[in-house]
Amino acid sequence: MIDFATDYGSYRGEVGVGVCALAGGVGGAKLAAGLQAALPPGNLSIVANTADDFDLWGLRICPDLDTVMYTLAGVANQETGWGVEDESFRALAMISAYGEDAWFKLGDKDLATHVLRTQRLRAGARLTEVTAGLAAVLGVESTLLPMCDEPVATTLKTPEGLLEFQEYFVRRGQRDEVLGVELRGIEEARVPAEVSEGISRAEAIIFCPSNPVVSIGPILAVPGMRELLTNSSVPKVAVSPIVGGRALKGPADRMLRSLGHEVSAAGVARMYEGIVDGFVVDRLDGEEETGISALGMRVRTTDAVMRDEPDRERLAREVLNFCSELV
Amino acid sequence: MIDFATDYGSYRGEVGVGVCALAGGVGGAKLAAGLQAALPPGNLSIVANTADDFDLWGLRICPDLDTVMYTLAGVANQETGWGVEDESFRALAMISAYGEDAWFKLGDKDLATHVLRTQRLRAGARLTEVTAGLAAVLGVESTLLPMCDEPVATTLKTPEGLLEFQEYFVRRGQRDEVLGVELRGIEEARVPAEVSEGISRAEAIIFCPSNPVVSIGPILAVPGMRELLTNSSVPKVAVSPIVGGRALKGPADRMLRSLGHEVSAAGVARMYEGIVDGFVVDRLDGEEETGISALGMRVRTTDAVMRDEPDRERLAREVLNFCSELV
Repeated sequence: MIDFATDYGSYRGEVGVGVCALAGGVGGAKLAAGLQAALPPGNLSIVANTADDFDLWGLRICPDLDTVMYTLAGVANQETGWGVEDESFRALAMISAYGEDAWFKLGDKDLATHVLRTQRLRAGARLTEVTAGLAAVLGVESTLLPMCDEPVATTLKTPEGLLEFQEYFVRRGQRDEVLGVELRGIEEARVPAEVSEGISRAEAIIFCPSNPVVSIGPILAVPGMRELLTNSSVPKVAVSPIVGGRALKGPADRMLRSLGHEVSAAGVARMYEGIVDGFVVDRLDGEEETGISALGMRVRTTDAVMRDEPDRERLAREVLNFCSELV
Repeated sequence: MIDFATDYGSYRGEVGVGVCALAGGVGGAKLAAGLQAALPPGNLSIVANTADDFDLWGLRICPDLDTVMYTLAGVANQETGWGVEDESFRALAMISAYGEDAWFKLGDKDLATHVLRTQRLRAGARLTEVTAGLAAVLGVESTLLPMCDEPVATTLKTPEGLLEFQEYFVRRGQRDEVLGVELRGIEEARVPAEVSEGISRAEAIIFCPSNPVVSIGPILAVPGMRELLTNSSVPKVAVSPIVGGRALKGPADRMLRSLGHEVSAAGVARMYEGIVDGFVVDRLDGEEETGISALGMRVRTTDAVMRDEPDRERLAREVLNFCSELV
């Protein structure tokens, strides 16, 4: 039995304790960074949502994937939650001067990522390979994996009509009511061999505190992904992105409500019923333990809010501890 | 008879005095800017060399075309002679951090041009159309025309082997001896309708002081271009890029020598024999008048060096004056 509960310091440098995390954007990236800090180098793989990817000015942009990559590389912009630290927007200003609607804030450094990714994809490389190359150069110690290599596009049904995800999320500031979610291209998506391997060799699987509808949802919707996870017998623990009835960041709470889900930690837990064994909630949501337990999950109550870097590692260690109890 | 020799101030606002200029990079851009300043708005078309275009990191880059565009828009970097003024290189630094060899200095603002051009070309627009769109937004009053819409690539034979033009020009700093010039794709190139129209409706045609081998040479090599020019009966005047036996900028002098041409104003004039009627040389080269006259050209001796903006307009007016004498 792997004892995740021991002092994690002792794991450092010891290869073989594999953890796989499923992550969306900011919240997922934070816990992934905590896990990377808590585990020995090379022992973490992260499967990231790519259904929010889109094309802008001919460039392939992968917002969630990049947020995780920059965060794990230690170069993420801490203030904005997206993009690279110490960023400038001079190319964007020129693009805007050329008459383009510069609603998506592409930084100059960030642009380098998109330019090289687009070039490599056009040359025939898979997104998995391109991501591995970029992340390695940035010094990411973990294995960052797109959920699939095929393009998938989250499209939201709103009272204003269908909106592409980034249009809803960035351009329109998440102000539209989400009445439905469509994952275009998901039927053609396949679980990449690297993801399959990452999940198969994992000794614990963590569902990061990301939006269950548009971040974790698309990952689980890749054909074969759900089976791969349910067939795995290792501890699977989800961390609630809803704390005190509200999303820590982003529109998850409003989205859950408009889609008919309960806006609570238990509401999210219900969406993972039959897949995860354990659920981590914030102390604010301790009273939901009974309801979540009724779903067949063990519950861990802790401080689930990651305010700073020490918080990330603390929560990661708590989650890993919890996993070890579920082995 | 059009009197180019009158006070050009009176031409301002008066449409119909069309001048067409053939231009390469920096030197050509300077005289084009002088012509634009001297002529009424909208009365200048510039046919620019695109045989130095290339692909870098998946982006289509048109160095000569952009130098002319930025110069005519008044946003060119005066110090470097290429790129945009008040430029930064933050995307390039990141591209370099990703392990790419950042030998071509792509500025952040400049990058916007390449990103949008590449997107529009991929969407099926012709380079002529893309250029018109970008130039218009930048406020270019003249009609900037690529010599052709098809990709043409100047390839140089050197003792080190074949080199792509920008590799020779930028990466290797023009240090290689040029033993031969090949214009790849030139057979498939066609004179765009806009260029044909620009030349046909021109009342004077100016060969800017650009490299006759790799700037004006490719323009003349587009199938049909030479005939279009020789069939035109309007004054055609070339300005020598060689002053006092040396190129004002760039490797034209060494290139002429290694390719077996005479490195002098007369040497350049000989390359335009049968096409141009008039040749403008610097006072330093006044003694070449007899030799150039023997080629059937009228010669105008003046200060052919453009040190600053007033110089550009002064030379442009001199050239236009000279044209009016040749009508």
